[in-house]
Amino acid sequence: MAKPLILITNDDGIEAEGIHKLAEFVSHMGEVVVVAPDSARSGGSMALTVEIPLRIKECGTYLGMRMLSTNGTPVDCVKIACNVILDRQPDIVLSGINHGSNTGNSVNYSGTMGAAIEGCLRGIPSIGYSCVSHKATSADFDACRQYIERITAKVLAEGLPNDVCLNVNMPVGKPITGIAITQSCRGRWQNEYAELTNPRGQKIYYLTGDYLNLDPDNPDTDLAQIKAGKIAVTPITPQRDATLENFIF
Amino acid sequence: MAKPLILITNDDGIEAEGIHKLAEFVSHMGEVVVVAPDSARSGGSMALTVEIPLRIKECGTYLGMRMLSTNGTPVDCVKIACNVILDRQPDIVLSGINHGSNTGNSVNYSGTMGAAIEGCLRGIPSIGYSCVSHKATSADFDACRQYIERITAKVLAEGLPNDVCLNVNMPVGKPITGIAITQSCRGRWQNEYAELTNPRGQKIYYLTGDYLNLDPDNPDTDLAQIKAGKIAVTPITPQRDATLENFIF
Repeated sequence: MAKPLILITNDDGIEAEGIHKLAEFVSHMGEVVVVAPDSARSGGSMALTVEIPLRIKECGTYLGMRMLSTNGTPVDCVKIACNVILDRQPDIVLSGINHGSNTGNSVNYSGTMGAAIEGCLRGIPSIGYSCVSHKATSADFDACRQYIERITAKVLAEGLPNDVCLNVNMPVGKPITGIAITQSCRGRWQNEYAELTNPRGQKIYYLTGDYLNLDPDNPDTDLAQIKAGKIAVTPITPQRDATLENFIF
Repeated sequence: MAKPLILITNDDGIEAEGIHKLAEFVSHMGEVVVVAPDSARSGGSMALTVEIPLRIKECGTYLGMRMLSTNGTPVDCVKIACNVILDRQPDIVLSGINHGSNTGNSVNYSGTMGAAIEGCLRGIPSIGYSCVSHKATSADFDACRQYIERITAKVLAEGLPNDVCLNVNMPVGKPITGIAITQSCRGRWQNEYAELTNPRGQKIYYLTGDYLNLDPDNPDTDLAQIKAGKIAVTPITPQRDATLENFIF
């Protein structure tokens, strides 16, 4: 029987430490192929590259694993891997390890989770891994290793329900005390722009912002569990349909 | 009492015919401000501009309505409008009219719907309007006018439930026979890349593809209702959380 085929991507780009760590941590579980953007695509959501063509670049191997980059987004990477690069459907799609948090409603904007949701839409068990601080060190990534191995192995062995993928957020800089199934913390971004003036005297606006936690007393949110030292595993669906009762046109 | 404040954006860019038509159709309903990307951002999903600063450009007026562009995505446009440009929260966010379909699982990739979902996350009633063919003519847009007016007026008057926005897809090139509340048609994209060779002998890949309809006998899908000549109104939620029973780590 062929070894499981593990497709790895991210939104921080092929050179990021997080994707190398993720590949290393799961390298013993199957045949790993890394297909990632050639540079950072943070906040890439599920964006597609429509107007320009994609190119695929072989980037050698890392610990024996095949590495490729594209000039596309995380979702493009999953699509072109499944359509062009791989000779069979992956058994699992892993995205990350993201350098930064994808908690709360950030799941909507996250390129890391965009790739995982794309895998899920294709019917492939898929997981996005994120460390909750951009300042995560090698030691922080290594502290997550046993949990990433455990979660990945379980999903490889048992799969996931249809239309469910996992958004895994991992604490940084504190002892990890276990794994919790969580909910995306309800909230809203505010003060989202820093206004500066460029050398030509024009106003420019950088995205920034604070997350207003609208559910601070709920112990089951990703934010609450991470604060308690847990790895937060939030089940996520690609299905966006809602119900609308008694709305007659 | 102040007139309702109507924020309009799109993913085809400020110069597209669709956004001008949409602004024209609703101009009598309130104070309209258009804030749109400076060029096309098709397939932009909910992508954010993180690494570079945004700029805002005043683009004069159209039928008396203020027009502005940014170098950002559709979601960026909604964010910067609400944070920087507008002096009060909009009463409604309208996105479109998209030149092309946003049916089925395309809602995940659509920049048009990305902007509407962003509005919804901000607690603002929001609607994305799409014509289901890139070949839509002025006459096709005009044929949708009365429906866009009716749907927009109803949502302005009554609002929408929390966490619900509307994905409205409109037939092109056939008589429109009414409005239907629909479901996103389940399906999967396949044959997603056209492989070409560029003048330097390199393989390049353009996104393309067919939508495999996995629910062809369901009369309530957006695709089925559009085929029947109806305007398809699909309620959409920004909330991605799923449930995962009996999954113990």
